Amino acid sequence: MRNEESATHSSFLIPHSLSYAAAGVDIAAGERAVSLIKGVARSTFGPRVLADLGAFSGLFALGSSYRDPVLVSSTDGVGTKLKIAFALDRHGTVGRDLVAHCLNDILTAGAEPLFFLDYVAVGKLVPERVAAIVDGIAAECRANGCALIGGETAEMPDLYAPGEYDLAGFIVGVVERDCLVDGSTIQAGDRVWGLDASGLHTNGYSLARRALQALPLDQVHPELGRSLGDELLEPHRSYLGLMRPLVAAGAIRGMAHITGGGILGNIPRILPDGLGVELEWGAWPVPAIFGLIQRLGEVSFDEMARVFNLGLGWVFMAAESATETVRSLAPSARPVGRVASSSCGDAASSVRLIGAP
Amino acid sequence: MRNEESATHSSFLIPHSLSYAAAGVDIAAGERAVSLIKGVARSTFGPRVLADLGAFSGLFALGSSYRDPVLVSSTDGVGTKLKIAFALDRHGTVGRDLVAHCLNDILTAGAEPLFFLDYVAVGKLVPERVAAIVDGIAAECRANGCALIGGETAEMPDLYAPGEYDLAGFIVGVVERDCLVDGSTIQAGDRVWGLDASGLHTNGYSLARRALQALPLDQVHPELGRSLGDELLEPHRSYLGLMRPLVAAGAIRGMAHITGGGILGNIPRILPDGLGVELEWGAWPVPAIFGLIQRLGEVSFDEMARVFNLGLGWVFMAAESATETVRSLAPSARPVGRVASSSCGDAASSVRLIGAP
Repeated sequence: MRNEESATHSSFLIPHSLSYAAAGVDIAAGERAVSLIKGVARSTFGPRVLADLGAFSGLFALGSSYRDPVLVSSTDGVGTKLKIAFALDRHGTVGRDLVAHCLNDILTAGAEPLFFLDYVAVGKLVPERVAAIVDGIAAECRANGCALIGGETAEMPDLYAPGEYDLAGFIVGVVERDCLVDGSTIQAGDRVWGLDASGLHTNGYSLARRALQALPLDQVHPELGRSLGDELLEPHRSYLGLMRPLVAAGAIRGMAHITGGGILGNIPRILPDGLGVELEWGAWPVPAIFGLIQRLGEVSFDEMARVFNLGLGWVFMAAESATETVRSLAPSARPVGRVASSSCGDAASSVRLIGAP
Repeated sequence: MRNEESATHSSFLIPHSLSYAAAGVDIAAGERAVSLIKGVARSTFGPRVLADLGAFSGLFALGSSYRDPVLVSSTDGVGTKLKIAFALDRHGTVGRDLVAHCLNDILTAGAEPLFFLDYVAVGKLVPERVAAIVDGIAAECRANGCALIGGETAEMPDLYAPGEYDLAGFIVGVVERDCLVDGSTIQAGDRVWGLDASGLHTNGYSLARRALQALPLDQVHPELGRSLGDELLEPHRSYLGLMRPLVAAGAIRGMAHITGGGILGNIPRILPDGLGVELEWGAWPVPAIFGLIQRLGEVSFDEMARVFNLGLGWVFMAAESATETVRSLAPSARPVGRVASSSCGDAASSVRLIGAP
């Protein structure tokens, strides 16, 4: 019924007449995308999703089993990691990045995820491409027990180039108020533990792409043992599964997700005033990709540590007395340093990388 | 410390060395934007926002006063209404659009808003521009009792043109499960009521901009009584304040927000099988802007009704016996039609516009 040829106005006007489709917005493609997405979103639903009720919104029955629930929410994008996906025409992993980033952000408060919504803005709506993106979102949601209860796909031909798109994700989780982790109990002498990053995660891609622009994405690079494209598209790691037993055991005093701002910028976000962190450079492996970026881009070490995770994707603090608990519940956690008194009030200098180049 | 001149590597490398700033991402500008935003976000906080705890996420204490809470969530953007804001360099209203759209979406389920998060993606981060956008978001949040508890500002120089940006918003509200409004109790014979739109709201701008492209945005247009730019930037109306007393009174059987898909596409989303709606064309005023778009774009009436709200921004159904309640609690609601049995199973034809051109 949106076809211009079936419109009822005088035929001589037809060549000039406008429809939404002629203006670059294809409602039929939008509907096809929705039908492709519907089943995969449904695969993430648990019994608390009221799937057939929300015509304009997503509904999640929180129920009455919480004592004093705190909702924990975060929003993020994937940044210009998307440009790698565009260049390689591979759209199945950026959705995983989106979800993992958000999952980790609310995990820092000790929250279990409840539900997720996505915003996908495209220059031209190609239903199969949107479906590939949402497949990735749904896969990471399923793997972490999070329901994908809503989303928006917007076709904006004048804002995005035809093959390009942007993504934003929104997550809501819950934690009992007396189980909230916020760093306030961190003390000098606490151990700092780290979990390995899977790569750059979703930060620093504007810098990384410039530094590496002379390298082909599709050839195996000897230092990486795989192609640069595979390395750069490696999905952001979710730390929920690893951290859940430790959080449940009450063994954690603070958690930091190493995102934009790098190692130096993120750890101070959870430290009480007057405390700093001393990390031992060498206590965790730095993936080869960071050396490559630093060398080819001639980036200073300080800049590297302010932009990238340098292999340390997740940091948490626990009392010395919790050491055995940490070792048994999270064997892959590495002791990477200590909390120390900070003589300097400047948060930016409250992380020292001991032995760093 | 991010200044290249203070970097420690050999000076002959400096001209080639990369920093995040040189790669187009200005962390200092990002920090300035955050500091501009912080106070205005805080102005939206009520006692349930745990403002100082969430380093990586927003925290909202739901508390234990709900019997059986259902969380209602939605995400939306502003679409290419943004292009009007870019053209006029006026960024104070698109944030209001973003919030109002989301508020209305969850209101259809009878939900009260709790909190909002925004995603702002820019080509070049101009802190004052981001602050103007977030001022609009915060203003609409405050006006509707919704807390702005988080957000993300992403600078992506390779994805957006320097003066351009995209916005996505995300809202969470709550409704007691036994107060949920979902259209399932709508019956044949129910009255259909309408509330006036403030203009195009946030839908159909790709079509509208094409249709009106020959008209200057900055001159007063006689049919509109104001400039085309003012008309097209008129903020999306929130119906929460108007509808709240009616929802609280239990007088409503279904609500539809007339967004993308227009009058014809949105009302069927809440109708039970076998029911349709007969609207009387002429029962509400159609703002002059729609006639202008239709005439200059030579758009078919059917297309207009599938893309635009045509002045009817909100529709709700109530039993005939609730008529006096509606008139007293929402005097501005107009009776616009009736629910009727639908002989045809096709949802797309379940809305008839009686007397339409």
